[in-house]
Amino acid sequence: MYLIGIDVGGMSIKGGVVTTEGEILFKTSIPTTEKYTSDYSISEDIKKVVDAVVKGANIDIKDVKGIGIGQPGSIDSKNGIIRYSNNIALENVPVVKELQQYYDLPIFINNDANCAALGEHVFGAGKGYNDVVFITLGTGVGSGFIIDGKLFEGRDCAGAEGGHMVIDISPNAKPCNCGRKGCWEAYASATALIRQTKEAMDANPDSMMHRIAKEEGQVSGKTAFLAAKQGDKAGRQVVDNYIDYITCGLVNMVNVFCPEAILIGGGISNEKEYLTAPIQKAVNEGRFGAAFNPTVEVKTASLKNDAGILGAAALAL
Amino acid sequence: MYLIGIDVGGMSIKGGVVTTEGEILFKTSIPTTEKYTSDYSISEDIKKVVDAVVKGANIDIKDVKGIGIGQPGSIDSKNGIIRYSNNIALENVPVVKELQQYYDLPIFINNDANCAALGEHVFGAGKGYNDVVFITLGTGVGSGFIIDGKLFEGRDCAGAEGGHMVIDISPNAKPCNCGRKGCWEAYASATALIRQTKEAMDANPDSMMHRIAKEEGQVSGKTAFLAAKQGDKAGRQVVDNYIDYITCGLVNMVNVFCPEAILIGGGISNEKEYLTAPIQKAVNEGRFGAAFNPTVEVKTASLKNDAGILGAAALAL
Repeated sequence: MYLIGIDVGGMSIKGGVVTTEGEILFKTSIPTTEKYTSDYSISEDIKKVVDAVVKGANIDIKDVKGIGIGQPGSIDSKNGIIRYSNNIALENVPVVKELQQYYDLPIFINNDANCAALGEHVFGAGKGYNDVVFITLGTGVGSGFIIDGKLFEGRDCAGAEGGHMVIDISPNAKPCNCGRKGCWEAYASATALIRQTKEAMDANPDSMMHRIAKEEGQVSGKTAFLAAKQGDKAGRQVVDNYIDYITCGLVNMVNVFCPEAILIGGGISNEKEYLTAPIQKAVNEGRFGAAFNPTVEVKTASLKNDAGILGAAALAL
Repeated sequence: MYLIGIDVGGMSIKGGVVTTEGEILFKTSIPTTEKYTSDYSISEDIKKVVDAVVKGANIDIKDVKGIGIGQPGSIDSKNGIIRYSNNIALENVPVVKELQQYYDLPIFINNDANCAALGEHVFGAGKGYNDVVFITLGTGVGSGFIIDGKLFEGRDCAGAEGGHMVIDISPNAKPCNCGRKGCWEAYASATALIRQTKEAMDANPDSMMHRIAKEEGQVSGKTAFLAAKQGDKAGRQVVDNYIDYITCGLVNMVNVFCPEAILIGGGISNEKEYLTAPIQKAVNEGRFGAAFNPTVEVKTASLKNDAGILGAAALAL
């Protein structure tokens, strides 16, 4: 039996045929339309991708166990509805019902960060752990929670938004895209790191970060890390502060969930142990009852570029 | 059948015989010994209370369904062990095993805030809700979580410490008893409110709070509320800020758990709707995806003085 995983993004809809062991047999993608309407639902484009991967993998749709869809935004996974999606203007789209007109198969949809967490748990670095906190450090901070081997989404699938936990209630707190001030996302996302890097560059005209950014053509999430590794003091300070921000939110999560493992995904996770080693130390020292409570492993997520397809496919397992 | 609930506190060990409907038939208490040793375990005192309530309620121990114990600190509820308790210097005490030498009954122990959450869910204001976030605003901020009708304790019963979520990462963050800075507890506990009230009194020599504190004999968690209700501007400001602090942490919880109801216990909850009405409004406006996600009810806990005994008894249900 095969699984089909669909990864809906702002730019493209990716899809793949996946084995139950997590091997991708065939994958493809089409661009996301600028504006879906009631006449042309996103389900039509998802159908195109499903049909393309079934054909491309040269399988029979009868051998497909189910279709999983990962979608950014607020998803009512119980009823298969996109409640609201910001980056691909969607509201109350009953995707699962629409697709079930075409396929006599179990079809699932969930938030993309939830899918990524599930994918890592089933196929990736989260294998073997029953309790996992997954975060992805990208444009924002996404989070997903595995409790006792199962995806935890909050009541009515409307929770698990760890990135929108306020960690700074002070008057100088940074604004967040969600409308609140001081959210973890506004400190620990790649976007926030780039802001922090630029601020440090402005304050430190002699920092290596200027040369590095020039060579790279832009200030990115890598700039401060590259500088720090070359012994640049200002770069080191940016990285240290950034790690403190990540750690702060993670300790908050650990104090509530006490997971066995924390998995960090997203572009920043390419820093691997340079990122995870100090975080693991700080989380275990900083957590409530550090002296007597169990420790937590901090690792990078492993599915990388295929995380979206594999995470969505995992929904159908 | 009857339940026995034991509520261990820093000052006393309370106990009661409770019906399965949550009626207390008989209760009593004994003082907590200053220092328990390996020769004289706290289990001995718990036994005294159990025997006293069985006698006092005039029931047969054979008609007892189980014994539940609520205990402050870090509790390994799976193995019935007090890992660590701060206020009654205890470490690695296998209470359940010790008590099972005396009683051929199911015996349970859990953290007191978890018990309180469970008690409200089973017998109190949380009845009928499947997903509840319970907080108690007292010396600290305790928290307990009901997910899908069951108590959620985190892996190895080492989570659910919502009070130790940092909400202020700024350099001026208030220190917390746990060793971290900026914990929710350092802003939203009754202790914090008293500190905030005193600070406002120092800054506002004309505030009504001075007269009220004099009349009450002390600055308490009620001082600012009483002043605010009488139109005192500085008192109003203290209350407004305090409500913002409570709300900040609650929105963080809602974004992760999306409970049906938030229950607020502890001394401060005596302010009832004066406290909960603005919090309910602010939580529902401030939560992530407020426009499309389900709303949350905010209520005060209902079990009050007997919460400890009833919550512990609920463990045995």
